[in-house]
Amino acid sequence: MTPTIQLGANQYGKAETRVVRVNRSGGAHEITDLNVSTALSGDLTDTHVTGDNAKVLPTDTQKNTVFAFAKEHGIGEIEEFGLHLARHFVDSQEPIHRSRITIEQYFWDRIGVGGTPAPHSFQRSGVETRTATVTYDGTTSWVVSGLRDLVVLNSTDSEFWGYPRDRYTTLPETHERILATAVNAEWRHVAAEGDWGKSYAEVRRHLVEAFAQTHSLSLQQTLYAMGSRVLDNRPEIAEVRLSLPNKHHFLVDLSPFGLTNDDEVYFAADRPYGLIEGNVLRDDSPEPGLAWG
Amino acid sequence: MTPTIQLGANQYGKAETRVVRVNRSGGAHEITDLNVSTALSGDLTDTHVTGDNAKVLPTDTQKNTVFAFAKEHGIGEIEEFGLHLARHFVDSQEPIHRSRITIEQYFWDRIGVGGTPAPHSFQRSGVETRTATVTYDGTTSWVVSGLRDLVVLNSTDSEFWGYPRDRYTTLPETHERILATAVNAEWRHVAAEGDWGKSYAEVRRHLVEAFAQTHSLSLQQTLYAMGSRVLDNRPEIAEVRLSLPNKHHFLVDLSPFGLTNDDEVYFAADRPYGLIEGNVLRDDSPEPGLAWG
Amino acid sequence: MTPTIQLGANQYGKAETRVVRVNRSGGAHEITDLNVSTALSGDLTDTHVTGDNAKVLPTDTQKNTVFAFAKEHGIGEIEEFGLHLARHFVDSQEPIHRSRITIEQYFWDRIGVGGTPAPHSFQRSGVETRTATVTYDGTTSWVVSGLRDLVVLNSTDSEFWGYPRDRYTTLPETHERILATAVNAEWRHVAAEGDWGKSYAEVRRHLVEAFAQTHSLSLQQTLYAMGSRVLDNRPEIAEVRLSLPNKHHFLVDLSPFGLTNDDEVYFAADRPYGLIEGNVLRDDSPEPGLAWG
Amino acid sequence: MTPTIQLGANQYGKAETRVVRVNRSGGAHEITDLNVSTALSGDLTDTHVTGDNAKVLPTDTQKNTVFAFAKEHGIGEIEEFGLHLARHFVDSQEPIHRSRITIEQYFWDRIGVGGTPAPHSFQRSGVETRTATVTYDGTTSWVVSGLRDLVVLNSTDSEFWGYPRDRYTTLPETHERILATAVNAEWRHVAAEGDWGKSYAEVRRHLVEAFAQTHSLSLQQTLYAMGSRVLDNRPEIAEVRLSLPNKHHFLVDLSPFGLTNDDEVYFAADRPYGLIEGNVLRDDSPEPGLAWG
Repeated sequence: MTPTIQLGANQYGKAETRVVRVNRSGGAHEITDLNVSTALSGDLTDTHVTGDNAKVLPTDTQKNTVFAFAKEHGIGEIEEFGLHLARHFVDSQEPIHRSRITIEQYFWDRIGVGGTPAPHSFQRSGVETRTATVTYDGTTSWVVSGLRDLVVLNSTDSEFWGYPRDRYTTLPETHERILATAVNAEWRHVAAEGDWGKSYAEVRRHLVEAFAQTHSLSLQQTLYAMGSRVLDNRPEIAEVRLSLPNKHHFLVDLSPFGLTNDDEVYFAADRPYGLIEGNVLRDDSPEPGLAWG
Repeated sequence: MTPTIQLGANQYGKAETRVVRVNRSGGAHEITDLNVSTALSGDLTDTHVTGDNAKVLPTDTQKNTVFAFAKEHGIGEIEEFGLHLARHFVDSQEPIHRSRITIEQYFWDRIGVGGTPAPHSFQRSGVETRTATVTYDGTTSWVVSGLRDLVVLNSTDSEFWGYPRDRYTTLPETHERILATAVNAEWRHVAAEGDWGKSYAEVRRHLVEAFAQTHSLSLQQTLYAMGSRVLDNRPEIAEVRLSLPNKHHFLVDLSPFGLTNDDEVYFAADRPYGLIEGNVLRDDSPEPGLAWG
Repeated sequence: MTPTIQLGANQYGKAETRVVRVNRSGGAHEITDLNVSTALSGDLTDTHVTGDNAKVLPTDTQKNTVFAFAKEHGIGEIEEFGLHLARHFVDSQEPIHRSRITIEQYFWDRIGVGGTPAPHSFQRSGVETRTATVTYDGTTSWVVSGLRDLVVLNSTDSEFWGYPRDRYTTLPETHERILATAVNAEWRHVAAEGDWGKSYAEVRRHLVEAFAQTHSLSLQQTLYAMGSRVLDNRPEIAEVRLSLPNKHHFLVDLSPFGLTNDDEVYFAADRPYGLIEGNVLRDDSPEPGLAWG
Repeated sequence: MTPTIQLGANQYGKAETRVVRVNRSGGAHEITDLNVSTALSGDLTDTHVTGDNAKVLPTDTQKNTVFAFAKEHGIGEIEEFGLHLARHFVDSQEPIHRSRITIEQYFWDRIGVGGTPAPHSFQRSGVETRTATVTYDGTTSWVVSGLRDLVVLNSTDSEFWGYPRDRYTTLPETHERILATAVNAEWRHVAAEGDWGKSYAEVRRHLVEAFAQTHSLSLQQTLYAMGSRVLDNRPEIAEVRLSLPNKHHFLVDLSPFGLTNDDEVYFAADRPYGLIEGNVLRDDSPEPGLAWG
């Protein structure tokens, strides 16, 4: 080994442990359906350089811990479960100096039978997932909540014009287009405590309502409106990061068939797609620290 | 070419045309979001054997027809749109003797803003898709409706015991397990006309309710209950075909950690999975003909 | 239960058991990497109608059998492994009257180190998979071999013209286009025995060579050439079934930029795509029986 | 808008433009098959806050530029094509201060016919893709090359033992296991010029050979061996980043069937999987700047 070569940033863990918990304590069951990933870093040079694993808590143990904690402590909101796991690994393993727990939650609705909710029957609802990323360094905890694949569409109130044209520009300006995207959003909390469930519901509501209510001159404008709407209304949030694919819907040219297409029939394209990414944050928000990884 | 070689069954078409139609005629917009595939067969030996395309309506034309029909005739229920397309190709192209149109529909909910439905803003709902397969041979039309990826779960009322054991059997019997599946169902209509929208809603309701209400001794029993429930209640349906993956949820052994797992914490496995497939039909139902392809 | 409702065709089994076998007997290791699915049918009315499982060999047992057979009998060619499994289930379980074993094989190449093949290091090769489907009814065995996702492309020698035009036709005729497809092929063997490895290699070779050597006037013509080439050269094959997506490559219009595009720059589209399906078979081939399911 | 809310980091572009170029200039054709994504950032506050697009070069124009450049300048190595595109956007658009071009390349082999390479027929080779990410800020260019989904497996020479045990540890130590991973690697070049094709081939060779030649006590050790092998041999590389999923192969317990499993039959699991991530770099390497984004 050449002396000038060194190990840089590194982490290891168990990805995508699929844990499902059934709470049978009430009259009706509750289910919580998660995909949990753990990542630890710290004093891990030995295993990389010599293969000495004395400081490497196995990823298999990390997986076992996820299952055991779901029993010992329940799950509750995913931010809470993440905090519990994140703190456990750093606080119990001396060589581990930082942990990051990433959780996806899948939603289920209760099945209705004859108009009455069935007590222990469920159906998956929605394509979107709720997410949480919790980071802990032995002193501070950071919580980022989020959602993924919330697919939304406005059938009007979207324009795109006034842009610069160069030699390669052929796009016609438009004052009427479909605007569709799959919202991928993450938002950083000011503090590592709060009413996670309510906060999630409210942030999600503000994102969706801002999407619906913004007369859009660009997807960037919609992105900023969504992020600032959240910050305007939720003091517990310091920063919102959005990644919005522009899922193009092209008006089909029906004129060869003697038909007029008055913004009625569209082709939904797969690729390429626009990709608009941006962060919106408060001036006075605390530093992000290790929140974003 | 050896004389003993011949062309067998064949078909060709355009797969996965993604057409979205916006109906702006009312105060609030309506959107219809489809994935349409066409497949034609008939007197097509020439193109296979010599490359003479005189009888081959291009797949590009088939795609154009999907878009144009969405404008000229609207879409309505997908069975109706499928019938319209299926009949068009056979009736207008002499060499084409059979057409099969397969449609997937994606569902959208109206976004609510402050409790009020927004007039032209939508979000994708559910992971499930509605499907229709329409076949036409110049005389008869067959309609098969369906749904795909309706993920459901019962957290109790499922058992599995009393099965034969051979040298390779290690599975313990159980009187309490999670039963979860992704319902893939298709059902054949007695006739090529009807109230497609209502029929779909009712068949779906019966499938889901039968899943929830069946105390299951095997996924086969649940399958049969689902299919027969539909036939018992919907005289317009002749046959139901179900394909039900058994999405295993394994109870995690927490005893090494000194914990008892009272049917509470599960591991949701990906593969392998059970796969239960079966048809349920009426004695007196008409012959399927070309319905299933 | 209404007396007019009955159970139709049905089967059940364990899908996608991922078994990897390492043969360490020689100086260099060999690995076999499979995805095995089993499906059984027979006297299975009871479990559907009453939940009595006395005739239902658990899918878990089927999975165990796959692993155990990989040890007891080795794997060999996948057709052979499939025959072994197919016969076992029907011959050992009286209520089971038909079994179908479907296998996918993933290919690995030996890693070279300094030009020498390493004895126990491998890399996945190719996107394509080899497949086999074996069916057995207690008397007869049928073997269908195949391959999936063999992606091929001809950059010239492909034309498409002379087709009928209707009101919806806009496609210009072409004498020069890219022809690309992902070959999905299955071929039925005359008999349930043979040199499976050699047969596979030769059929694959003929399919690929026929694709490369055919000056194509339609993808149908290419399909027929591929199938008949196999039958012309491999007497052990009775029938070839091909499903060929036409992976469109559209010439980009560069004229707005003052550039000429002499069949040089293409856009590779995802959807929609053409889909050409057809069977090629011998006059004198044995009846397919249950081969295709 | 509350004055304390501000726009943070942001970028926009066209993702996944699928461009295929056929070079017909020689006796045999050559094809280059790419997936190109562009992302621009700069003085873009207006479009976010007011919807004024005067500084927003349309993503459609970016796509057109990709196609036009493939014609005007050819493609060459993907790092070169990326540099060309990256510099164009910043140098030609005053408000754009940084561009990042991400390219995936898919590999094709020439089809052999009767042992001779066909001049214009190709088949997709391998599951792996080659990647390049080029960043430019108006002054400096950074080049990161990479590969994705190179799936490799050692059938021996892998151990895992000597790790700490806590209350949740059940994993038995092993001195013999399968080690399999899908290599995802990126490596930063010291300079934005070089023999890209040769560098790629050599880095890939060193990664694969190091994987094969390392007797592994942990996947971390293998990771470090792979990264340091590259740096030891390729002075043009400053840093290697590796993300290695541990694709678990579990030895199947065949003892219930009276069989001994001498490291022969394995179950290949999907999830959860270990995930080992790490960077290896030189002491004396230049600062990464904007290379990694």
